[in-house]
Amino acid sequence: MKAEVISIGTELLLGEITDLNAAYLASQLPLLGIDLHFISTVGDNRQRLIETLNHAWQRSDIIITTGGLGPTEDDITREAIADFFHEPMSIDQSLVSQFKELFKHFNMEMPESNIKQASVIPSCQVIPNPRGTAPGWWVAKDKHVIIAMPGPPGEMQQMWLSMVAPRIQREFCDAIIFSSTMKTFSLSEAKLGEITRSFLLARNPTVGIYAKPDGIHLRIAAKADSLDEAKNLVKATTDELRPLVGDYIWGADTDTLETIIADLFIRKNFSLSTMETDTGGILANTITNVPGSLQFFKCGIVVNRSELGEGFGIDKNVISRYGPLSPEAVSEMASSVKREFNTTVGLGLAGVVENGDAAHKLGTILIGIDDGKQTYAFQRTYPGTRLQIKQRAAIAALFELRKIML
Amino acid sequence: MKAEVISIGTELLLGEITDLNAAYLASQLPLLGIDLHFISTVGDNRQRLIETLNHAWQRSDIIITTGGLGPTEDDITREAIADFFHEPMSIDQSLVSQFKELFKHFNMEMPESNIKQASVIPSCQVIPNPRGTAPGWWVAKDKHVIIAMPGPPGEMQQMWLSMVAPRIQREFCDAIIFSSTMKTFSLSEAKLGEITRSFLLARNPTVGIYAKPDGIHLRIAAKADSLDEAKNLVKATTDELRPLVGDYIWGADTDTLETIIADLFIRKNFSLSTMETDTGGILANTITNVPGSLQFFKCGIVVNRSELGEGFGIDKNVISRYGPLSPEAVSEMASSVKREFNTTVGLGLAGVVENGDAAHKLGTILIGIDDGKQTYAFQRTYPGTRLQIKQRAAIAALFELRKIML
Repeated sequence: MKAEVISIGTELLLGEITDLNAAYLASQLPLLGIDLHFISTVGDNRQRLIETLNHAWQRSDIIITTGGLGPTEDDITREAIADFFHEPMSIDQSLVSQFKELFKHFNMEMPESNIKQASVIPSCQVIPNPRGTAPGWWVAKDKHVIIAMPGPPGEMQQMWLSMVAPRIQREFCDAIIFSSTMKTFSLSEAKLGEITRSFLLARNPTVGIYAKPDGIHLRIAAKADSLDEAKNLVKATTDELRPLVGDYIWGADTDTLETIIADLFIRKNFSLSTMETDTGGILANTITNVPGSLQFFKCGIVVNRSELGEGFGIDKNVISRYGPLSPEAVSEMASSVKREFNTTVGLGLAGVVENGDAAHKLGTILIGIDDGKQTYAFQRTYPGTRLQIKQRAAIAALFELRKIML
Repeated sequence: MKAEVISIGTELLLGEITDLNAAYLASQLPLLGIDLHFISTVGDNRQRLIETLNHAWQRSDIIITTGGLGPTEDDITREAIADFFHEPMSIDQSLVSQFKELFKHFNMEMPESNIKQASVIPSCQVIPNPRGTAPGWWVAKDKHVIIAMPGPPGEMQQMWLSMVAPRIQREFCDAIIFSSTMKTFSLSEAKLGEITRSFLLARNPTVGIYAKPDGIHLRIAAKADSLDEAKNLVKATTDELRPLVGDYIWGADTDTLETIIADLFIRKNFSLSTMETDTGGILANTITNVPGSLQFFKCGIVVNRSELGEGFGIDKNVISRYGPLSPEAVSEMASSVKREFNTTVGLGLAGVVENGDAAHKLGTILIGIDDGKQTYAFQRTYPGTRLQIKQRAAIAALFELRKIML
């Protein structure tokens, strides 16, 4: 079963709003086991919409449009569908009565222009809109269906969940799709591609590789007759992949490194303090993006590299002997904040985010962690802009922190 | 001149990521005076991409693709374009050498699979990618062009701004469009709409209103035969708007509040220290996103609200008398860090980012600023999620800091 989504609205083509409806439907269709093959975006232009419906009809079974069902002149979805099927439009008087009731309920008079929204064609079945005055259309012909839904995301999602998705499942579905994401860090996309090559060529489950700011993600998706069966297929592939990818895996699905750290620290009743130089607070900021993080995050110091050694219990000799960009310095930073703020763990982070030189290349990152038993230091180099290096530094620090705390 | 955008990636069709690239290009093309007629999204499927290129070629002059240029098996954009033009692919050895240099710089060995990214066809001109290993392609034929750019938004936008947009302007554009953005904070979109209503209806220059995390932006865009003429039109409208919007304006075009603060502090040789509680370091992190910021940013403290008064020179009595969420507390925080770290200015920031109550509603923000002459305190309330409140708090603090320092 092939589906296609058509988003309608000139404002989408001007970049004035982001198309949330297509992304929503894209995330919903796999749950029904339906493959979404295309998303098209067209302006409020009847001819171009008809052209797009033509292409869609030739290649897809289920065509879902959003937008263009409003009461104004530039709303042309109904007209385009009528033209596409060569069917005449007429006003459905029972819909007009419903609209009038609705406006009466809000003590308003129905504007004349709303009558346009009561238009129908002989082949269309009206889909009620519990949240607005734009009814949807369900037009089935020759084993194809065009489903027209309103553009406002709240109205569209309500209509989708309560009426459209159940009907599609009843009339079109046999298979179910389930997917899961494995998240890795510290491995390049290419390297992960090599390790998992045989999986990338498989058809069911399919495995896809995606580069994200927090590392490379592997998505495993399976199609089956039942949800259990699809889950089992995904699990079998995940179990095969796990030993190949090993310690680079840090989480799955909706996990972020900061939620994993928060879970771990809150569960074990640990506390954390940090000291950063060049990364300017991105580590503290990332950690405290998680609800409840203030339960375990006691203190974060951001200090200029040139002032390192003035206060916070730092041993000035370590800094003057090894320099502020050294494993010794970040270890000292970690131990100092751990001691000063009396936390389970202390973390020190430094790096070169601008003006690298021969001794310290741009993108060099130093991480120090003191867990009370031992002090660890790590050095990495990352490409990218200042912001990317900062972000990568915070993620690398949380990745190493997770490994040590487990 | 008709343009069309094709976004490539199965993850887009599964709703796992939102297509930011299409929205970005949709907002950029009008600046060149180019009409975007269609956006299509296709998965990592060679046949369907070729089909989409076919439709696009028939109806559009400029076809821009994003995504599918990675090193793995499922990246098929290069292959599909080669098939579409019936041209053979080969490896460009000079690109391979560049890749090897790049990996060497990061002390890594180039994975074999990256060689795939050095593929070219006879008609393609390679577009360098300063931020990654996926070069773009510019393939011009019969007055049409296909431009293939990488999917990661940072890489794509950099390539677009530095190379693709200027070349499109040179080769395809006759009318010149010039635009300028006026950035405001603390005014609602509706209020700004009322103030500027007559401008919003004008045709040339056009004025658009866009809600952004750092306030409401007004974009003034003019079309003319020469750049000077377009600039003059924009300047005339900007000059008329300025007195209407007044003190709410904080910057223009590529300004951010943090670059404005950095310019100001570096130029005047001022220094800054900050102390935050609930906002967890977002202020320090935002300030230090600017190159050169470590010249004036001396120290940022992130301290748990429950520990406020323990150290950093804070007068414990102020906290116990007024509570940590009070104008008095944030003023004390500002004065303490100013004194402790001997800076020109001290800034204190607190807020309710989770679990609001009757006394302190979720979204309450408190800002304290000590400039050595006077101490200022501000209280605001912002709607939104934890992350939105944190972000708005940092922006509000920088907005007030700018006003005081001017």
